[in-house]
Amino acid sequence: MEYKISNKLAALKPSAIREIFKSLADPTIISFAAGNPSPLSFPAKDLAEISADIFENSAAAALQYGTTEGYTPLRQAVSARMKEKFAIGTDNDETIITTGGQQGIELACKALCNEGDAVICENPSFIGALNAFRSNGAATIGVPLCDDGIDVAILEDTLKNTPNAKILYLIPTFHNPAGITSTLENRKQVYELAKKYGVIILEDNPYGELRFAGENVPTYKSFDTEGIVIYCSSFSKILSAGMRIGYVCGPKEIISKMVVAKQVEDVHTNLFFQMLCYRYMTERDLDAHIAGIRKLYGDKCGLMLSELDKNMPKCIKYTRPEGGLFLWCTLPDGKSSAEFVEKAIERKVAVVPGTAFNCDTEAPSDSFRLNYSMPSDEDIVRGIKILSDLAREMFC
Amino acid sequence: MEYKISNKLAALKPSAIREIFKSLADPTIISFAAGNPSPLSFPAKDLAEISADIFENSAAAALQYGTTEGYTPLRQAVSARMKEKFAIGTDNDETIITTGGQQGIELACKALCNEGDAVICENPSFIGALNAFRSNGAATIGVPLCDDGIDVAILEDTLKNTPNAKILYLIPTFHNPAGITSTLENRKQVYELAKKYGVIILEDNPYGELRFAGENVPTYKSFDTEGIVIYCSSFSKILSAGMRIGYVCGPKEIISKMVVAKQVEDVHTNLFFQMLCYRYMTERDLDAHIAGIRKLYGDKCGLMLSELDKNMPKCIKYTRPEGGLFLWCTLPDGKSSAEFVEKAIERKVAVVPGTAFNCDTEAPSDSFRLNYSMPSDEDIVRGIKILSDLAREMFC
Repeated sequence: MEYKISNKLAALKPSAIREIFKSLADPTIISFAAGNPSPLSFPAKDLAEISADIFENSAAAALQYGTTEGYTPLRQAVSARMKEKFAIGTDNDETIITTGGQQGIELACKALCNEGDAVICENPSFIGALNAFRSNGAATIGVPLCDDGIDVAILEDTLKNTPNAKILYLIPTFHNPAGITSTLENRKQVYELAKKYGVIILEDNPYGELRFAGENVPTYKSFDTEGIVIYCSSFSKILSAGMRIGYVCGPKEIISKMVVAKQVEDVHTNLFFQMLCYRYMTERDLDAHIAGIRKLYGDKCGLMLSELDKNMPKCIKYTRPEGGLFLWCTLPDGKSSAEFVEKAIERKVAVVPGTAFNCDTEAPSDSFRLNYSMPSDEDIVRGIKILSDLAREMFC
Repeated sequence: MEYKISNKLAALKPSAIREIFKSLADPTIISFAAGNPSPLSFPAKDLAEISADIFENSAAAALQYGTTEGYTPLRQAVSARMKEKFAIGTDNDETIITTGGQQGIELACKALCNEGDAVICENPSFIGALNAFRSNGAATIGVPLCDDGIDVAILEDTLKNTPNAKILYLIPTFHNPAGITSTLENRKQVYELAKKYGVIILEDNPYGELRFAGENVPTYKSFDTEGIVIYCSSFSKILSAGMRIGYVCGPKEIISKMVVAKQVEDVHTNLFFQMLCYRYMTERDLDAHIAGIRKLYGDKCGLMLSELDKNMPKCIKYTRPEGGLFLWCTLPDGKSSAEFVEKAIERKVAVVPGTAFNCDTEAPSDSFRLNYSMPSDEDIVRGIKILSDLAREMFC
């Protein structure tokens, strides 16, 4: 039989990153390609202890169906923490638990976009979000990302010329892939534009707590007086990625539709791990644990930057992240990174080509992404040396 | 701000069942309204032991990101078990892990239906599936469910008159809500019609292993020579509902698109519990455990039927399930069940009105669903007496 695939999925390709991930079975390859948190960021011993107690005392509840919105104590704890630490959430907002931050992004698009609508994104942007928008039949329109955040002038032009834009998708803090944190001034200007043109800001903040340098910048959601921001985050980078627990805080009216959509996607998120997550948050010291991750990533990023500073020819530019998992390298004179990435893999170093993050899937890219959360210190030193030598041979 | 919700979600209501579920906080109410498995069906002690071992020996892997298709050893074990026990799966098929059986249903629709396409369903049908189809902008077209399965003559008429039908959604074994198992003869006729009219059969079989009476009937997937059946099932009714682990076996070409769609919905299913599930399947006696659940539900269903036989006036008809969790009662002369359900709740017995399962959300229903997996024996006796008395007062 000839199968007819729906229009919205027919053209959609698996994420290039996850495909690269699969090809990394070769243990001799130094990988800067992952998006994974370090296993050192998982508090396994604490989780094991609480898990044993849940099995002992609450198994019947933890293994049974739960409510779609999420385990109530966890929702309340997440909501209270966001409010106290980040001034996020008003009486007009609701917080729900999602199956990873990814589901929050996808549900927001499903709730707001018809097929043929548009989502405006920073270019480059997170591939998982771009594909989530495409899977709902929405077009992804890229606006260049500058050092201080999304290009405000081009954004206004784009908003003017895209009447069917429903969402402005942003990763303002420790951007994936670019490692950039937008300034408060940039955020305020962007917020005014979103308000003026009637689009919802979808603020994706999975790395927000991983700052290891510089000063905190308020999230969009923290100054959302108009109720136009949906805020997505997750526990993937601070407790466990594999458990798939994220959360969304946004206007009640939109969240209630996202709940209906979630109900038919997976009924609810793994309840046992929701309980585990809640117990960890309230019985252990989450902030101290996160401080440890910050230190770890600060050290790793510092090492990668100092090796780049020492070895990489000056014609290659790279961002200097203040947090998160990634930095972003750009080749000289708009040269395509495709050949560089290919040659790097031949020399046993994997990086992700910038094309994977393009809003326009056909466009070339002069950039590539480096991850520093997963590789060992030795691999960072060795891998950056190899990339630097290659860059010198090819470009400078 | 006035929010504009997408067309596909704007009209979608939360599942009436889950809303009823929320209102069941009153502990004096006898509930036959749940769709939950009995907590006695969760092998908590075994799961606790394996869980402790995973934390001890494989925590870094279990808490990290995994592949979208699912944990490979679990996929292989599920695939082998389906093949050995139920003759399901060919070289043309692929098996993936989903976040509950619900996600498999939703992904199948997303992969095959454009907005405006149609899914043909038994009427009544599973509300979670109906809403999954609607959330993808597909229309749900009901065909009456008879004692031997979906009405074949009306199905052919419907297929003839619905050129944009892409999926035929069926729960052939221990149907939810109706408790009916379709005959092999019915299945063969339906399969030929699906083949003739070029629609994919989406076979939903979450209860298939819970037979406590009668003879096994082959699944559609087991005789799918044409590659036109997508088979969904889950561990929710045999290990844990809250862990949200299901699986899908279907033609590779369709499954590969479902994987892309899953990637943007939740990246992958909770990996720790996938490992737990795999270890339970291979290190403990799953078949013996399932035999225990069959006995439990057989006893409970038997009790409910004998109490109905003793007490319920003859003008009320009900199905006699050979497995699964539900039986289905029908009032005389096409009377609407709405008032009966309301009066029953006043007398502290909760059942689900048939309207919740209608393909046409505006249509009335003369039926209601009873669940026997959750209530205690005492509650079954007391609750059926109350319903019987009420039926006698109202109808006979």
